[in-house]
Amino acid sequence: MSEDALRTLVMQVRNWGKWGPDDEIGTLNYITPDTIAEAARLVTAGKVFALGIPLDRNGPQSGTRQRFNPIHTMFRDGGDRPRTPAQVAEMQGYGGSDDWIVMPLQCVTQWDSLAHIFYEGKMWNGYDADLVTSSGAARNSIDKTSDKIVGRGVLLDVARYKGVKALEPGYAITQADLEGTAAAEKVEVKRGDLLLVRTGHMSRYLDKNDWRHFDLDPFPGVSIYATPWLHARQIAAIACDNYAVEVRPSELPAFRNPFHVIAIPNMGLTLGEIFYLEALAADCAADGRWAFLLAAPPLPVVRGVGTPINPYALK
Amino acid sequence: MSEDALRTLVMQVRNWGKWGPDDEIGTLNYITPDTIAEAARLVTAGKVFALGIPLDRNGPQSGTRQRFNPIHTMFRDGGDRPRTPAQVAEMQGYGGSDDWIVMPLQCVTQWDSLAHIFYEGKMWNGYDADLVTSSGAARNSIDKTSDKIVGRGVLLDVARYKGVKALEPGYAITQADLEGTAAAEKVEVKRGDLLLVRTGHMSRYLDKNDWRHFDLDPFPGVSIYATPWLHARQIAAIACDNYAVEVRPSELPAFRNPFHVIAIPNMGLTLGEIFYLEALAADCAADGRWAFLLAAPPLPVVRGVGTPINPYALK
Amino acid sequence: MSEDALRTLVMQVRNWGKWGPDDEIGTLNYITPDTIAEAARLVTAGKVFALGIPLDRNGPQSGTRQRFNPIHTMFRDGGDRPRTPAQVAEMQGYGGSDDWIVMPLQCVTQWDSLAHIFYEGKMWNGYDADLVTSSGAARNSIDKTSDKIVGRGVLLDVARYKGVKALEPGYAITQADLEGTAAAEKVEVKRGDLLLVRTGHMSRYLDKNDWRHFDLDPFPGVSIYATPWLHARQIAAIACDNYAVEVRPSELPAFRNPFHVIAIPNMGLTLGEIFYLEALAADCAADGRWAFLLAAPPLPVVRGVGTPINPYALK
Amino acid sequence: MSEDALRTLVMQVRNWGKWGPDDEIGTLNYITPDTIAEAARLVTAGKVFALGIPLDRNGPQSGTRQRFNPIHTMFRDGGDRPRTPAQVAEMQGYGGSDDWIVMPLQCVTQWDSLAHIFYEGKMWNGYDADLVTSSGAARNSIDKTSDKIVGRGVLLDVARYKGVKALEPGYAITQADLEGTAAAEKVEVKRGDLLLVRTGHMSRYLDKNDWRHFDLDPFPGVSIYATPWLHARQIAAIACDNYAVEVRPSELPAFRNPFHVIAIPNMGLTLGEIFYLEALAADCAADGRWAFLLAAPPLPVVRGVGTPINPYALK
Repeated sequence: MSEDALRTLVMQVRNWGKWGPDDEIGTLNYITPDTIAEAARLVTAGKVFALGIPLDRNGPQSGTRQRFNPIHTMFRDGGDRPRTPAQVAEMQGYGGSDDWIVMPLQCVTQWDSLAHIFYEGKMWNGYDADLVTSSGAARNSIDKTSDKIVGRGVLLDVARYKGVKALEPGYAITQADLEGTAAAEKVEVKRGDLLLVRTGHMSRYLDKNDWRHFDLDPFPGVSIYATPWLHARQIAAIACDNYAVEVRPSELPAFRNPFHVIAIPNMGLTLGEIFYLEALAADCAADGRWAFLLAAPPLPVVRGVGTPINPYALK
Repeated sequence: MSEDALRTLVMQVRNWGKWGPDDEIGTLNYITPDTIAEAARLVTAGKVFALGIPLDRNGPQSGTRQRFNPIHTMFRDGGDRPRTPAQVAEMQGYGGSDDWIVMPLQCVTQWDSLAHIFYEGKMWNGYDADLVTSSGAARNSIDKTSDKIVGRGVLLDVARYKGVKALEPGYAITQADLEGTAAAEKVEVKRGDLLLVRTGHMSRYLDKNDWRHFDLDPFPGVSIYATPWLHARQIAAIACDNYAVEVRPSELPAFRNPFHVIAIPNMGLTLGEIFYLEALAADCAADGRWAFLLAAPPLPVVRGVGTPINPYALK
Repeated sequence: MSEDALRTLVMQVRNWGKWGPDDEIGTLNYITPDTIAEAARLVTAGKVFALGIPLDRNGPQSGTRQRFNPIHTMFRDGGDRPRTPAQVAEMQGYGGSDDWIVMPLQCVTQWDSLAHIFYEGKMWNGYDADLVTSSGAARNSIDKTSDKIVGRGVLLDVARYKGVKALEPGYAITQADLEGTAAAEKVEVKRGDLLLVRTGHMSRYLDKNDWRHFDLDPFPGVSIYATPWLHARQIAAIACDNYAVEVRPSELPAFRNPFHVIAIPNMGLTLGEIFYLEALAADCAADGRWAFLLAAPPLPVVRGVGTPINPYALK
Repeated sequence: MSEDALRTLVMQVRNWGKWGPDDEIGTLNYITPDTIAEAARLVTAGKVFALGIPLDRNGPQSGTRQRFNPIHTMFRDGGDRPRTPAQVAEMQGYGGSDDWIVMPLQCVTQWDSLAHIFYEGKMWNGYDADLVTSSGAARNSIDKTSDKIVGRGVLLDVARYKGVKALEPGYAITQADLEGTAAAEKVEVKRGDLLLVRTGHMSRYLDKNDWRHFDLDPFPGVSIYATPWLHARQIAAIACDNYAVEVRPSELPAFRNPFHVIAIPNMGLTLGEIFYLEALAADCAADGRWAFLLAAPPLPVVRGVGTPINPYALK
């Protein structure tokens, strides 16, 4: 039954072939020079909102499945610097520091690539899942989106619309919620939009200054039954302030991440997760302007399936 | 003698205390809401130029000093996916892929933080170099710039101005070159600008499709004697298509990176390196517009001293 | 008061200078060709006991401080292998797999080097703590012990001696316990011995097949007040089946790891942690032979302060 | 033709099923308690030879294919230590250092597991290569050998036998060479032996104190035509002081590593590479004793296909 429900939604929103047999970016194709130029005109105050959370060992990953928090370390530090003129001469300088990192590509604020999720052995646009091996994704990798993720951002603050600080864990945001929020905000969701949906859930962790269990706890998120509406709106991407865009527990208990399955391999929709939306939402509420330029460049990781990001919303 | 020459330039451009004793971002303070809003008005065509090079094992780092190329790897791939209905049921889904990376924070297109270089035991704004330990930079770390690196970008294509495809390795770009290029381009370098200087050097490696020795070979770059001009112009940051902004071999043989020493700990100037400028330069030459909105968000690595980036130039 | 108690023990056992001002291996000097040859004669049955725990993501580290469990990953796997004769020809073979790991050097069964702990700014033999920087330990690093850690192993099964499956968390093993256990086992602790002390604590986690909280929970361990006895016995190293040899909570509340502070920088004693002793202990109880050849080679990590190991006890 | 030559040898030495359908360790089964006890009796002088090369950034890997040298780094160092009594109190101690590493499991002295090489889509004992995915080797992983790699070591110093400091790169060691060396050394290769073959090749790099190109240069090694003899001798494992046991260039030009293909997936023979044999060889030449106890414990990496080691030869 879960299986049938999933399949019905899958077939309703599947975009395979829509941009040709070689396409690897899906709904990002909805972004055009026109939508970008229009979005840039929304930048009038010169305000910047950085939507990326810090990369830190005390982050949202519990490490219980595969993802861990970023591990940052140094090659050289202040203790390695030259101390005497002789050392300065030998090292040809006064020294410096240099560092590196080990991190899952989806451990912080992130974009999923279209190689991230499979459905019946297939990726987006019908590519075989076997094209993803230990050497990475031969198709649908994140670097294909290198210059694609900028355009009009629209924030739908569903929590605010529902009159709560944060939606309850397990609450599934409906199409009616999305439409109601948009109407209340006097904003129209349009083709090519980068849609940001605020559940308020992240504020729970920010308030206690402790990310622990963020990846394990139930959370509110977008309902699978809203995917046909997202499909019809022709949005370019969707991002959320929770762990996985969708709601947990899953609306289809047989599947952990049914929204992912519907959206990524079938609709070709790029998902963004763990977006920090608090400051942006407060500003939008204050000035009544819920649309802005969103520049969210991925790191062009060759054959990668995800990327950490620090999106800029500019108003 | 090198020592004296260095010190003279250092004292000419030192900005310590200019933004208070607690400042950790230096010349990025020159960016204001006004400069951002003005820059956004330059986006009229909706064109996007991604300035980040691919993250790949075959990248610009030789690994001979400390930096190596990004090492990308998978947690899960197509081979791990469920094959039978029983497996789909057990794994609660059709599977997917997940990946991670090990990388120096300065191995690809990047910003240096103001903790990157020391001078006489001090960092930017006079902080002690001992504040950078194995646990990272307690001051001047890159996350302090999280929402700061967006504004007007100006491309000075010095190679084009000099009528060459690429400046010769070892060529030091002078103040006169920078002024001449700006005049030829009919653009004025202003306070708060994110200045991009094209040497053409990267095209040598792109043409042969082989990055090897990029970090070891001599290269053209900006002269240390141009730093007073950059200081007077009050630019917010400078970035280049070479390995280190400055020229190699060094203009002061006793020091490997004298421009770094002058600019980072003393002027508080943010440097960007290994910027891919070819497509952007071609477009600017075609339409005669050398200024644009540059959105180059750092990853907010807590206590980090550098960050990989994929800057977007929007016209 | 804690401070004084610590200092008193420190000064009682301090071995600085005993093996010259350049020594970097401390009590491992007690091992000699004679003790090794004598130990080899204990190998009569040809039995092997591997004392290293598996390197696995589900290991004893919670990641809450700095250490995480080993992260193992593949460069190439079965999915990357050539499938057709043409691919076999092109790849010059039938393919294979290759892997790598990211791991704290002290995340599994391990030796601590003498650079691991400082006391009043000093390491073992009086070397300055500043000799350990981001580029590693310039003195007392683990590679100095490369060919040093083999000799007579003696297992003191204190839990068995006390008639319990496992000592209670927080129980501090006294000198009397160690002497009583040795007497009951009819074994004498001698100069150059690699002393293994079984608390039984690890069995709690093995029984439930879940390592979680192993690094966070209280545990039984060797009392700081037994260090003078260990000093007098002139053992070469000591290892335990708990997280830190010593007991937790600490016997000196002001200090997290007072045994470490006494033993490593002052006595120059090599500590081994998270040793799997269950099978070995059962065998010793069965045949009444508590001494054996112990070969526990460190990985010679240049400038390293710890090493994962898989010691072999041979009987 | 190469294909046929390879197949002929493969079928001559294939041991599939010999130790049952579930076996995952191959010829290591030849080691028994008797061979171990006998080997231990060879330890009379108490001498230790550590056969592992240092783990260092300046190691034998060029990074041109996938393997890089170990990258060692610190979590904490001397610069992080507490300086004042208040800091000592707050940190509950005087501080210390802690470190971690990123390394290919086959980048230094190493054992290959039987999951390392495939032949016609199969691993050792006929297991499918698809059992090795991004999550590692479901069969034939290195941890299956956790307590298996200790026994009689025999060093065949072929370079010495041939009267040269080092065999020429490209020289293929024949069965006659192996038999001649054994005869000259008055040692018999027996069932269960861990056979060490010295080519002298490593001395070239040690002499110039520079590992560069070790993985790229041609080297002497064991001929594929000697594999039937190794098979008949029933050795447990073979290790060499070159990069790959076998000779390079390959004796069968169509295949990069034909010895690997014959030995690992078909014979089930464990291979050891990059063994440091210089000091051991000198000692054996001096005392005329070429057999010893070899304890070479693998790190039990779950699902791993290789392991760094530091084998101890004890005489």
